[in-house]
Amino acid sequence: MTESFGARLRTAMDRFGPLCVGIDPHAALLDQWGLAQDADGLRAFGLAVVDAAAGRAAVVKPQVAFFERFGSRGFAALEDVMAAARDAGLIVLADAKRGDIGSTMAGYAAAWLEAGSPLEADAVTISPYLGPDSLRDTLTTAVRADKGVFVLAATSNPEAAPLQTARTIDVAGGDEQTVAARVTRDVTWANRSSAFDGSLGPVGVVIGATVDRSELGLDDELLADTPILAPGFGAQGATAEDLTARFGAVAANVLASESRSILAAGADGIAQAISTRNARYQEVLRD
Amino acid sequence: MTESFGARLRTAMDRFGPLCVGIDPHAALLDQWGLAQDADGLRAFGLAVVDAAAGRAAVVKPQVAFFERFGSRGFAALEDVMAAARDAGLIVLADAKRGDIGSTMAGYAAAWLEAGSPLEADAVTISPYLGPDSLRDTLTTAVRADKGVFVLAATSNPEAAPLQTARTIDVAGGDEQTVAARVTRDVTWANRSSAFDGSLGPVGVVIGATVDRSELGLDDELLADTPILAPGFGAQGATAEDLTARFGAVAANVLASESRSILAAGADGIAQAISTRNARYQEVLRD
Repeated sequence: MTESFGARLRTAMDRFGPLCVGIDPHAALLDQWGLAQDADGLRAFGLAVVDAAAGRAAVVKPQVAFFERFGSRGFAALEDVMAAARDAGLIVLADAKRGDIGSTMAGYAAAWLEAGSPLEADAVTISPYLGPDSLRDTLTTAVRADKGVFVLAATSNPEAAPLQTARTIDVAGGDEQTVAARVTRDVTWANRSSAFDGSLGPVGVVIGATVDRSELGLDDELLADTPILAPGFGAQGATAEDLTARFGAVAANVLASESRSILAAGADGIAQAISTRNARYQEVLRD
Repeated sequence: MTESFGARLRTAMDRFGPLCVGIDPHAALLDQWGLAQDADGLRAFGLAVVDAAAGRAAVVKPQVAFFERFGSRGFAALEDVMAAARDAGLIVLADAKRGDIGSTMAGYAAAWLEAGSPLEADAVTISPYLGPDSLRDTLTTAVRADKGVFVLAATSNPEAAPLQTARTIDVAGGDEQTVAARVTRDVTWANRSSAFDGSLGPVGVVIGATVDRSELGLDDELLADTPILAPGFGAQGATAEDLTARFGAVAANVLASESRSILAAGADGIAQAISTRNARYQEVLRD
């Protein structure tokens, strides 16, 4: 029996720190790195990031859109990059933001979470617009396969507010809550299983580092034992100090996601950039 | 200059009827059709559906998840199926439900809507969880490329209610509206351009055929000139009569999506199933 996703994540974060290194080969970065605007360029970029991250970070996060742009050849590059990352002992979080219902959602879960699938990752980001309960089977699939998911809850972009702060009424309790809190509540049940005692659970949420948690009702209790993927650090403006300032009692559950700020260091500077940032986050967590 | 997506869609629906034929090669259907559970099986399945739909339906809708399951080889099959469909004069709506922000969302838009992209479709489904305004650049990309998008608004699955009926407050007007109505309002502006006078606009929405439109605030005025992709017909329970019963004054804008109910006819029966269903919908629309 393999170890649960949350246990693996906790061990890796304890060892390397909370930095999650984005693999975002967008056009400007391929140019900056002197790589071709094609599937070979994507592959070389991704493998170089994996090489720099191995032994220096817990998690890499390929941004699927940039590979999808190049169709099946881009996906072949993504497969190679993810396989290399897993071989190097990195946890691979595929940032795909998939979301659907029924057998279609099961198709996405099989694609990203099934052992032996060409696109097998350790975890995948998923989107709850079709209702958090539509993700229930996917969470079960993840738990059974010792994989993880990160469900979009409160993202860091300014356009997110009208939808994620909308008020929803819980039929059972009658309490009003924000969509972001409702989504979080409806998916983190899986983390309460005694199987994950003393560790992180398998169901994470995405909460931007610039988000006002109290305004959204995303309190500490709701997030206990829940991995949190936090975009917004680095190029998007949140500082290392925001890790504890924003996340307080649950700061130790946070994966601090950075992409451009790390990748802009180029092929020669990225390994050092990763080590420096992880050291800085660990310093903040110790204080 | 090519014709706008809405104009092409209107012409094709006038000619063939409103049926949108799903290409959903899930495991049970591959077995039923006697095809292998691999990328070759997907390709054979997709090409057979395209062959049956050509000259009998306006639109085919490949369900991307079932191809993604097989990774890059599955995507290569999807590329072949979509290219064959477009060569046969079918409108191809990629059911991908992608949704992200900034340059990442631009990556998805380029993947599915850019001329010459390996995965080029005529339109793609997108998801608004990151906020309807985060899709603004994608809508602009679609308009410029004479492509279309269908934004998830009110889906037909029962788990959707807590999120899609949540109440959001419009800062400008102060009126409360449902998330489904807010999403629809915030994306259909693009259809009001005089460039699309007398035709459908390029920005569609997804509204399930079993949805209570009045409860959600999805009134006729909001949906004028807006293509509507309506799942829920066929295997999911809505009848042809629901096309007019549910959609009333905007029934002529509706693409009635069926997958299992058509595909279960098998390779020998699918062409007849498509013709029969389209004839039935056209009869309902005439009455």
